[in-house]
Order: sequence, then C-alpha cells, then structure tokens
Amino acid sequence: PPGRKVLIVYAHQEPKSLNGSLKRIAVEELSKQGCSVTVSDLYAMQFEPRATRNDIVGCLHNSEEFNYGMEAWEAYKRGGLSSDLIEEQKKVQEADLLIFQFPLYWFSMPAIMKGWMDRVLVQGFAHEFPHCYDSGLLKNKLALFSFTTGGSREMYAEDGISGDIRYLLWPMQHGIMHFCGVKVLAPHICFAPEYVSEEKRQEMLIAWAQRLKTLWKEEPINCSPEWYFK
Amino acid sequence: PPGRKVLIVYAHQEPKSLNGSLKRIAVEELSKQGCSVTVSDLYAMQFEPRATRNDIVGCLHNSEEFNYGMEAWEAYKRGGLSSDLIEEQKKVQEADLLIFQFPLYWFSMPAIMKGWMDRVLVQGFAHEFPHCYDSGLLKNKLALFSFTTGGSREMYAEDGISGDIRYLLWPMQHGIMHFCGVKVLAPHICFAPEYVSEEKRQEMLIAWAQRLKTLWKEEPINCSPEWYFK
Repeated sequence: PPGRKVLIVYAHQEPKSLNGSLKRIAVEELSKQGCSVTVSDLYAMQFEPRATRNDIVGCLHNSEEFNYGMEAWEAYKRGGLSSDLIEEQKKVQEADLLIFQFPLYWFSMPAIMKGWMDRVLVQGFAHEFPHCYDSGLLKNKLALFSFTTGGSREMYAEDGISGDIRYLLWPMQHGIMHFCGVKVLAPHICFAPEYVSEEKRQEMLIAWAQRLKTLWKEEPINCSPEWYFK
Repeated sequence: PPGRKVLIVYAHQEPKSLNGSLKRIAVEELSKQGCSVTVSDLYAMQFEPRATRNDIVGCLHNSEEFNYGMEAWEAYKRGGLSSDLIEEQKKVQEADLLIFQFPLYWFSMPAIMKGWMDRVLVQGFAHEFPHCYDSGLLKNKLALFSFTTGGSREMYAEDGISGDIRYLLWPMQHGIMHFCGVKVLAPHICFAPEYVSEEKRQEMLIAWAQRLKTLWKEEPINCSPEWYFK
C-alpha cells in the first residue's frame, strides 16, 4: 500500500539473469502499488563481505585483542561504524519489508549477501540481549527470501537427495531474521530455472508478479522448529 | 599418522582469540603426529569472498549473459581460474582431512569462509553431475567443522530458543561437504567461550588437543536427515 517502504537486497552479477528479472519485477510491481522501493545491488556496489577492523572508524575499544562483534557494537553506539554500514542500516531502519533476492549457493546465500548480514546486523542495531527473537530490535518488519536453485523440486523434497528445502531455510529465516525480531513471509523459490524452458521461466516471473499483488495481505509463517522440521 | 595431509581453513581476525588458539593447537598436535599441515588463514590472506568475473582469466564462455557457475566450470576445465583459486584447489586435492575453524556468525560460517566454499568448490573440481553426494569428486576425504558460538549450550538444545545445534549444521556438513563426497567427522563445538572463565577456556583447548590425538580412529557421522533432525 502507498507509503510502505521496501528494501531489496539483491545479489546477482548479471542483470539479464532470472534473479535480475525477479528483482526488476519486484521494483516495478511494488512501486506501482505506491511503495517506495530501495535496492542494495551488492555486486554492483562491490559490497565488502569481510568483517574486519576497517569497519571501525577511529580507535578500538580493546586494541590488545580484536573482537569483531564487540568492536562493532561499541562503534555502533558511538556512531563509529564505516559509512557503508551506516548507509545500509539506515535503509533497514526505514524499511517495512526486506526482500532478499539471490541464487542459492551451497544451501545458503552467496558470500556477498552473508557478508551483508554479518556486517550490517550488528548488536545494538538489530539485537541486544535480551532483545532477540520475538523482541529483537527490528520487530515490526517483514522479511522474504526469494531465490533460485540449481537442484530440482524433487531433489529438495522431504525424501529427496538434498532433503526438504525448509531444512536449509532455518539458519537464514530463524537464525538471522527471527533472531532480530523480523517476521518472515513464506519464501519464494524458483526451482532449477536453468533446466526449464524459456516458457517456464516466463511463468516463474508471472507467478512472482502475481504474488506481489497481494503480498501485504499475507500472514507471516510460524517461525519455529515445527515449520522447518515438523 | 605420518604422511597424512591436513588443510585447516581458518577464519578469525585475531591470532590471540580462542579460534586462533584452537587452530594453533591443531597445527601443533597434528604435526607432532607426523601429518603435514597447511593453513589457509583467510583474513590474513585477505581472501576474496565475492564470486565475480575476476575469477575467470581470459575470455568468457558466454559473455552475453554472465553465469558464474557455468563460467567457473568452463574455466576450471581449461585451467583458466584465477590463481588464488587454483592454489586453494591444490591444497584441497592433496588433503586427506579438511578442518574448518571459525566463530559461528549468524547460524553459519563467516562470509569470508562462505566465499571460500562458493569459489573454490567449483563444478568439475568438487562435483559434476552425477558425481555428487556419496560419489562426489572429493570422496575419500574427511572434513571437520570446529567452531565457537556466542550462544550457550542450553540455547542450542533441542528445546532451546535457538533450536538443536545440529539443525544449523545441515547446510554446511550435508549441503556442502557431503555433496562433494567428503565424509564428515563429528563437529567440535566450543559453546560461548566469551562468557566463561579463563580456566574453562583452557579446558576447551585441552579437550581439543585430546580429541586430535585419536582423531584418525574416529568414524564419520551418518550424514543423513536422521542425524540432524531425528
């Protein structure tokens, strides 16, 4: 609905890819609804995935023994994180909905997107004990993981060789988003687009556009072990 | 035993950290056994985690639409991967055992290590359909995930707030290592070292050194859904 803010964190090298099309469709459809849409195009930004001392501007809290999590937390509190992180945190803070668009790499997100999680969602900003899980600091936001796979739907069936696709969603949806208090919408999965016809790929794009039309009416999943492992 | 080769892929910024000590102990103990030990110290190497066109030397197979997986596969076959990847693949090829030593970041490995998986384990080298899972191209090797956590053992119990720790091992152990044919030894987990006494941390180091003494007698886990989700 008009006024809602969406951040799309996008990780694909090629604009002409299916991931590129899925991202573009989301921008178009959500903009048409009156949402304000921001895209973090990680490869285009050459986003830094490595968590290092460079993320801390100025002196360290403890320069004797570098502890990334603690230094990032301290730096966040004094406004001393590197500018690329402050920029991403602003986008997250303003967003009502986070969409992660990526090709599945090794049962997870590509390293460049994992680096976004590692570096942006620092303690103090996204969580701070006891503010985690349902009381995480990013509560009242929604997240949706939208991705393509190499393996087929059959390989990712419960009795398939790669196991139920939900098994691999646990670290991303529960371990990251739920931990920060974000509510999770059902994932959007395009299985094995490289191995289907052009016509099938077009259907995948249409299905995504269709889903987006009623996205704001969806209820979040129940992000607990039952959803993932029954 | 003498002659066995071990590759330790290590991802921590600080040599004085517990992860640094665990890595050092593994080098010492395994060397003492007569193993030849190599370490890939990812932060020290400033290892590149991003999967980009830079990984391909020379012309692309399809420059119209960049497909990383396909380009890396083609480049592997013609010896056209970037030198840092060829170097890492050589280390993997020679190793009998891969040890991954890292602090758990967001229910997974740090992005710099995920980038190692994304970029080093390319099709043609580590797997090539139908050579995946039990017939993956890296069969006859062993892997062991050794990591520290922020959360306590109680949080990672089956009924704990973060769910059974085994849930989050699925993508790493099954989705990556088993997919490449590597057999997986039981993980080695140091829970919440930042929240225990110096004495407890010393005990953690001793326990790791002890385990390493009989490591070669261990049987791999049964890497199937039952192990992870019962």
